[in-house]
Amino acid sequence: MNSVIELLKSHRSIRKFTEEKIPHELLLELVRAGQSAATSSHIQAYSVIHVTRPENREQIAELAGGQGYIASCSDFLVFCADMKRPTDAAERTGANVVRGMTEQLLVASVDTALMAQNMAVAAESEGLGICYIGGIRNNPQAVSDLLQLPEHVYPVFGMCLGYPAQDPEVKPRLPVEAILKEDVYSEDPDEVEAFDQTMQGYYQARTGGNKDSNWSQNLTPLFDTKLRPHMRDFLVKRGFEMK
Amino acid sequence: MNSVIELLKSHRSIRKFTEEKIPHELLLELVRAGQSAATSSHIQAYSVIHVTRPENREQIAELAGGQGYIASCSDFLVFCADMKRPTDAAERTGANVVRGMTEQLLVASVDTALMAQNMAVAAESEGLGICYIGGIRNNPQAVSDLLQLPEHVYPVFGMCLGYPAQDPEVKPRLPVEAILKEDVYSEDPDEVEAFDQTMQGYYQARTGGNKDSNWSQNLTPLFDTKLRPHMRDFLVKRGFEMK
Repeated sequence: MNSVIELLKSHRSIRKFTEEKIPHELLLELVRAGQSAATSSHIQAYSVIHVTRPENREQIAELAGGQGYIASCSDFLVFCADMKRPTDAAERTGANVVRGMTEQLLVASVDTALMAQNMAVAAESEGLGICYIGGIRNNPQAVSDLLQLPEHVYPVFGMCLGYPAQDPEVKPRLPVEAILKEDVYSEDPDEVEAFDQTMQGYYQARTGGNKDSNWSQNLTPLFDTKLRPHMRDFLVKRGFEMK
Repeated sequence: MNSVIELLKSHRSIRKFTEEKIPHELLLELVRAGQSAATSSHIQAYSVIHVTRPENREQIAELAGGQGYIASCSDFLVFCADMKRPTDAAERTGANVVRGMTEQLLVASVDTALMAQNMAVAAESEGLGICYIGGIRNNPQAVSDLLQLPEHVYPVFGMCLGYPAQDPEVKPRLPVEAILKEDVYSEDPDEVEAFDQTMQGYYQARTGGNKDSNWSQNLTPLFDTKLRPHMRDFLVKRGFEMK
């Protein structure tokens, strides 16, 4: 296992940070490393908002469900899928541009994720800790208003960055055999059951026996209600009509 | 710039590979490195199909618009957003599960992309070359049939992996100032125009003056028609109803 793979496999989310600030030049370098990720047809369909105003960070922390580290980490970024820049660019060449296709929503969301993950790896290679914040989709309209996002741009997730003040364990993942399938899709509920036992052991060890849960049980609250049911209308309103 | 950031910044797609095969144990290690990426609420909403049958690789190469390296690279993978595994797991706990939410499509697509990008970085750290294949969405139904994908699973993109038999230049990216914005969204068409000039120079140098185009012009064919207009119906049919 080379040192890069070792770094990748040591990832865990960090939610407690020291007071130390990330030098601005390093932050720029991390974004550049992010931009080096593959991008579909070179469209680079993303923008990153660096939220520096303390009152905005406080507000986003609250909108995301009370995640205080959004306000207290060194730097907080909002990764936006941005179809405005590439479609505007095409329009300026005189093209009649089509917007709002489902394909465009996917391309921009994937482009944004590839870029962010490269940036996460770059950050961790510098000894920083990161935490993705999907909670900004709890109220994406309020976040969009705060960041003055125009049409055809939507906030996909946030990211906290800073110097770690905690050293949590790496969380187990499904066995590779459950993920990688040969030639055709297959599934094996036994693998999930075995992983449920792994996670039960992990939670018990981590909480001194206080958390008696497993992977499947933890997923239940995500799916037994309509999670973020506003997303469809929100995206349509922003010009991602999913045509 | 540390060596990891240097590696990230040296990425370019590889489309010509030597005959050398990737050892299977290494491939598994790359997938494990992929799985170490962050995952929304730990759902790990992805499956990866390792396409080994030559006739299937030939067929996917054709479906993707005649990309022969899909058939000739050492290993070809199809990354699928998989909401079946986590929702089935929740269902087995006795939950009444909601499927087909727009939020779920986004979460699974982003999870898949984060995982794939980690895997791409791991591959490149081992001297491999990779190329993402968005072209599998040209005919995602045929690809899904070939891989026997069930409902609630859809193919997001493919990836070619192998030992590089070419050494292309790194493609320029937009300047970091165009991507990273402070506190509020802003845009500057001058930055795009400057980047158009950068890309024009890049194409001219690469083609000995034969390709006279720029970034904006290259984007035009992506947006002046309905790109992959089947995606919406395809996703709905697969159970991603975008509710």
